[in-house]
Amino acid sequence: MNTFGTLFRLTSFGESHGAAVGGVVDGCPAGIELDLDFIQSELDRRKPGQSRLTTARKEGDRVELLSGVFEGRSTGTPIGFIVRNADQHSGDYDNLRDVFRPSHADYTYYKKYGVRDHRGGGRSSARETISRVVAGAIAKLCLRQLGIEVKAWTQQVGDIACERDYTRLDLSLIESNDVRCPDAAVAQRMEQLIMQVKGEGDTIGGIIAGVITGCPVGLGEPVFGKLHAQLGAAMLSINAVKGFEYGEGFAMVDKRGSEVNDILAPLSPPEGGTQLEAYKGNEAPSGAVWGALSNHSGGIQGGISNGQPITFRVAFKPVATLLQAQESVDIHGNPVIVHPRGRHDPCVLPRAVPIVEAMAAITILDAYLLNQATQLK
Amino acid sequence: MNTFGTLFRLTSFGESHGAAVGGVVDGCPAGIELDLDFIQSELDRRKPGQSRLTTARKEGDRVELLSGVFEGRSTGTPIGFIVRNADQHSGDYDNLRDVFRPSHADYTYYKKYGVRDHRGGGRSSARETISRVVAGAIAKLCLRQLGIEVKAWTQQVGDIACERDYTRLDLSLIESNDVRCPDAAVAQRMEQLIMQVKGEGDTIGGIIAGVITGCPVGLGEPVFGKLHAQLGAAMLSINAVKGFEYGEGFAMVDKRGSEVNDILAPLSPPEGGTQLEAYKGNEAPSGAVWGALSNHSGGIQGGISNGQPITFRVAFKPVATLLQAQESVDIHGNPVIVHPRGRHDPCVLPRAVPIVEAMAAITILDAYLLNQATQLK
Amino acid sequence: MNTFGTLFRLTSFGESHGAAVGGVVDGCPAGIELDLDFIQSELDRRKPGQSRLTTARKEGDRVELLSGVFEGRSTGTPIGFIVRNADQHSGDYDNLRDVFRPSHADYTYYKKYGVRDHRGGGRSSARETISRVVAGAIAKLCLRQLGIEVKAWTQQVGDIACERDYTRLDLSLIESNDVRCPDAAVAQRMEQLIMQVKGEGDTIGGIIAGVITGCPVGLGEPVFGKLHAQLGAAMLSINAVKGFEYGEGFAMVDKRGSEVNDILAPLSPPEGGTQLEAYKGNEAPSGAVWGALSNHSGGIQGGISNGQPITFRVAFKPVATLLQAQESVDIHGNPVIVHPRGRHDPCVLPRAVPIVEAMAAITILDAYLLNQATQLK
Amino acid sequence: MNTFGTLFRLTSFGESHGAAVGGVVDGCPAGIELDLDFIQSELDRRKPGQSRLTTARKEGDRVELLSGVFEGRSTGTPIGFIVRNADQHSGDYDNLRDVFRPSHADYTYYKKYGVRDHRGGGRSSARETISRVVAGAIAKLCLRQLGIEVKAWTQQVGDIACERDYTRLDLSLIESNDVRCPDAAVAQRMEQLIMQVKGEGDTIGGIIAGVITGCPVGLGEPVFGKLHAQLGAAMLSINAVKGFEYGEGFAMVDKRGSEVNDILAPLSPPEGGTQLEAYKGNEAPSGAVWGALSNHSGGIQGGISNGQPITFRVAFKPVATLLQAQESVDIHGNPVIVHPRGRHDPCVLPRAVPIVEAMAAITILDAYLLNQATQLK
Repeated sequence: MNTFGTLFRLTSFGESHGAAVGGVVDGCPAGIELDLDFIQSELDRRKPGQSRLTTARKEGDRVELLSGVFEGRSTGTPIGFIVRNADQHSGDYDNLRDVFRPSHADYTYYKKYGVRDHRGGGRSSARETISRVVAGAIAKLCLRQLGIEVKAWTQQVGDIACERDYTRLDLSLIESNDVRCPDAAVAQRMEQLIMQVKGEGDTIGGIIAGVITGCPVGLGEPVFGKLHAQLGAAMLSINAVKGFEYGEGFAMVDKRGSEVNDILAPLSPPEGGTQLEAYKGNEAPSGAVWGALSNHSGGIQGGISNGQPITFRVAFKPVATLLQAQESVDIHGNPVIVHPRGRHDPCVLPRAVPIVEAMAAITILDAYLLNQATQLK
Repeated sequence: MNTFGTLFRLTSFGESHGAAVGGVVDGCPAGIELDLDFIQSELDRRKPGQSRLTTARKEGDRVELLSGVFEGRSTGTPIGFIVRNADQHSGDYDNLRDVFRPSHADYTYYKKYGVRDHRGGGRSSARETISRVVAGAIAKLCLRQLGIEVKAWTQQVGDIACERDYTRLDLSLIESNDVRCPDAAVAQRMEQLIMQVKGEGDTIGGIIAGVITGCPVGLGEPVFGKLHAQLGAAMLSINAVKGFEYGEGFAMVDKRGSEVNDILAPLSPPEGGTQLEAYKGNEAPSGAVWGALSNHSGGIQGGISNGQPITFRVAFKPVATLLQAQESVDIHGNPVIVHPRGRHDPCVLPRAVPIVEAMAAITILDAYLLNQATQLK
Repeated sequence: MNTFGTLFRLTSFGESHGAAVGGVVDGCPAGIELDLDFIQSELDRRKPGQSRLTTARKEGDRVELLSGVFEGRSTGTPIGFIVRNADQHSGDYDNLRDVFRPSHADYTYYKKYGVRDHRGGGRSSARETISRVVAGAIAKLCLRQLGIEVKAWTQQVGDIACERDYTRLDLSLIESNDVRCPDAAVAQRMEQLIMQVKGEGDTIGGIIAGVITGCPVGLGEPVFGKLHAQLGAAMLSINAVKGFEYGEGFAMVDKRGSEVNDILAPLSPPEGGTQLEAYKGNEAPSGAVWGALSNHSGGIQGGISNGQPITFRVAFKPVATLLQAQESVDIHGNPVIVHPRGRHDPCVLPRAVPIVEAMAAITILDAYLLNQATQLK
Repeated sequence: MNTFGTLFRLTSFGESHGAAVGGVVDGCPAGIELDLDFIQSELDRRKPGQSRLTTARKEGDRVELLSGVFEGRSTGTPIGFIVRNADQHSGDYDNLRDVFRPSHADYTYYKKYGVRDHRGGGRSSARETISRVVAGAIAKLCLRQLGIEVKAWTQQVGDIACERDYTRLDLSLIESNDVRCPDAAVAQRMEQLIMQVKGEGDTIGGIIAGVITGCPVGLGEPVFGKLHAQLGAAMLSINAVKGFEYGEGFAMVDKRGSEVNDILAPLSPPEGGTQLEAYKGNEAPSGAVWGALSNHSGGIQGGISNGQPITFRVAFKPVATLLQAQESVDIHGNPVIVHPRGRHDPCVLPRAVPIVEAMAAITILDAYLLNQATQLK
């Protein structure tokens, strides 16, 4: 289905080569300042042609809000929006009319719906993510009022990775380079790799990492609406994503509980003593602050946020559309050689960063509203 | 929320130390033979005390179907079921009344709901998964009619792993050992590791792998209901899960598109020739079968099943409850030493295998039913 | 589907002649005192055999809460509950095995599901409403904390009706007679009519009226979740209901706007003056209370509660099961004479009063919780 | 919320004086011919200014489909659409900036959202129904393939009513007069009444009746998704609706079961005999057709369609906006005289006919898809 969320909901529509893409944001609380410049700036982070690392397609991608706003603020009613399609070069796809591209959604869409819309992927095109970025920007404007912030960055491209522990990174540097990696030196190597892959007409995968700060305790609805299950579903719904983990994720499988449990303790030890021994067996001083000594868990326990930063990572495959000849079959089952002429990204990571942030923001705001709704006030 | 699924839905209830756990399966198609022995046998695969690898708790765990069945078959109306709790040893938990266990849901539940139900984890207990296994068994009975089969197994415990490619494993061996690993030699080493960890009062994580065969093309609803997004949400909702991937997952991030694209081709080459060159540029012989030459994608493209086996992996952390002393704080913020006395699993993987299968079965059946609504009949 | 509500949700199961009926209440806020005596007393208002006006079936109908309660209070986790079936007299229905009763759900269930569960109506039996009454009682306990009260009563049986304007009735008298009509004289005539109809082996319809007081302004979600649309769906889901109206309902169709608009005005006129003229064209005194001079609208405008009492009426048909011979057909299309032997109500109104209240309470609590999500807090 | 439906879903947006109204239709089966002329013609039936009976506002109301269509047919992906607003005369509403109109949604929206969008009712404006008519037209195009037809008409205006039994009306005449009543003589009197009321600056209510033919047995999901409960919720969500009934509705409350049960019988009696006696006690001839001898039930039993025509009636109040002076209060609680200058309908019935049809079509198609999805094929 094309709706995401329970109380803060995005319903999205649009294909790459139709008249427009757009959506409806339902459940945006009333009275939020809908800063159109900010929304547009988020879209600009996603748009093609922004650097030599991305496709050469130029898409203006101006968002128009059609409803739900009055005198600059949200009214509580649904926010309809559209982004017109342009610069479509549909002709680029004529040679694909009867062809299934390898590892692409062409075949599965055709079999599911009985329709072959060959123009640039149709609904399976990444252009669909425009709606996510617009809704995510609106969610961010809401979260800003709550002191909650969502950040994502390119943590790995191919085999080149920056530090995994985000506290050792300077996240203010994310936007300082085209690849959106907060480590400048690593970013440079990532860019070199992407340019090399591009030169070969090939594509490359990678990992986007994210952190959500300022989240209160209590978000997430047991047992099936666990916060990380919602977050995972959000991320896995993005094109080209193959995996999701939170906290230490897959790296936890060969650890012992005694290694990765997050010990709770008073966090303000008395002078001269080590933290835990100081209070052991005694009453903590009144007003002592306590918390966890580590965050292996990634800010979520039992599916509910625990107040610590929420950390997660998303695995992207190398996108399927190569600018190389590949063997495949046509709609009749005959072998063909596919040679795409479209303009495509050699690596989706740089442009996927704002999409990951958008889906995280929508998920967290939705969880916030649900949590707020489920207690009598 | 405590409901999973759109058309085939499980609504679950129950805490570890209440009167019963249970649930309601809504949307089970009518006329399915509800083989109670099979449902019970699935529960038995999950139950504690089944081998020396698991907790010593003995839970009879007899399921009672209360509705939705007439003369042995489903009627199309909701199937209510309960499993009474017993052998509860609530006393084991008295010392935890005011204590938050490290990396446990105690604290987050307490803050979210304002209630401290200290008896064995309450709703966050793995006993909640009983309902999933019952619903999953019913889903399996439906899928069996469609020729769809779900299999899961312990692929890794700590750093001991069997072959990742399931086609090189003999899945009929899964139930032949206590750890549920289809490679007998590896299974033995896993068991040794678990016994060692148990001896130390510690816990260990691992990976469960799964494969779904017989799935038709077309399951999964773009764009937010992508099949792997639903499957991921299902898996991430299981206690102790920290990550999910499908197909080659995280291992794809450092690959090139040209390495991991699944090439489509006629699959029955003429005598004497290699497969693809034989047909190149020619019409394939009438009736030629074609398909993909590999399955890096894991059976899903663009969020829709492509008819190949669906493969996925689920990362489990070492469970938080150790039989060791650990530092923590109590409800007043005072430091305490926690020393659980309950009976707990040193490694949840063996008993989690049927839970993973259950959630996969529910997800696939739900997607199957949803797909039926895609075209007018 | 068998789930009602968005945030406060009842999932219900059970047939008249299965092992039990029951349900799961999900989304009950934590910390609510779950007064079991009150819940049982609500069930007792619904149970058969409570007076000579109802069926002679005796059903003990003891509710058992299985989860979601700790030390007498709700924990925020789902509340599972069951009521065992007993005194089933399934033999009464043997003669119906292959017969479709006129105006009954036998035929439609059979065609929809392909199963003929002839024992007392199966899922279409009014026994299903037990779950509604239990969930409604829990909802009432929540609403009580908010100062919201739901009352329903038998306003009409056949052509015998009491006053329609509830402000002219003494609602404290509802439970003072078997028919649950707050006008004692009218109640007596209603009872006589029901006894007469019963003597003839026939059945009779009627109207249940309801009022919800203490409801704050703002409940109801435009545009499809209008409060009265939710309330209407709730009422129309009750067996034998044929119509729903709120405020003056159908009686408004031949009125003019100038007759039925609810004029807003300051409600505390200065001494000696009539209300509206006094302030006309002037500032109202600071702190003047204002409101509507009438309530033709029934407490809802634009689908949102306006703070006035919410009034509605529900039309019940005479139930289809007569204790008379009726012509019909069997499963093979052959004509038969149906002569039910079961024990049935000649008029469902008296026992339906608590069901109407229950569905109203669930609806209002759900709307209350949803409204809490409308603005960021 | 602003989404209606489960599998065939409309998500709607837009205010009367924003840039556009529109929506997203999700779940439209693939391959349906989306006849744009038909969709536009349905909109034209709803538009203002179409006759002297309606408001003088001229709204061009051209619909633009933005996605989900390829070469004239639905693709299975969401259909986004917009209708630009124009001819807004916002100035007409300046005098209402701080005023609450009697019996209007001004006050409840203001209190719920804290925003006063005074321009023509904002989201509560009937302009919102444009989206319903577009989605309904798409639903009708789907239903046409299934042989299902939805018809509605003005059955009563004020106290002037045509025949209630639709089988005695010639429904082909509905569009032959401005009031959309299939009885020409009655239509003329209705028009006279409306013109008289209009001359007085007043408004008048009425009843729209509807019938759905060609519906197969089996639509509707027990117990909360009863077909008439869904239909009722659909109708009650339309502006100005105060009541809903199906079959004989409220007229059944003073009937006996023996009067209104729909007797089932073979429908092709042998020569010379009366219908029922002919077969009594004998086998019906092979292939004998049987069915109900009446349709008091209105085509639904136990919440499931029984194959007979589905009949229902919808009560509309006189709309609240009069072109008369009315007393009210402003946002500060001061008394004011409201004198609307906008252009408004004296009677909404004629233009509401296509809206009722649209909501019925959406409901029935959704029920059809649900029923189709819930059985294994």
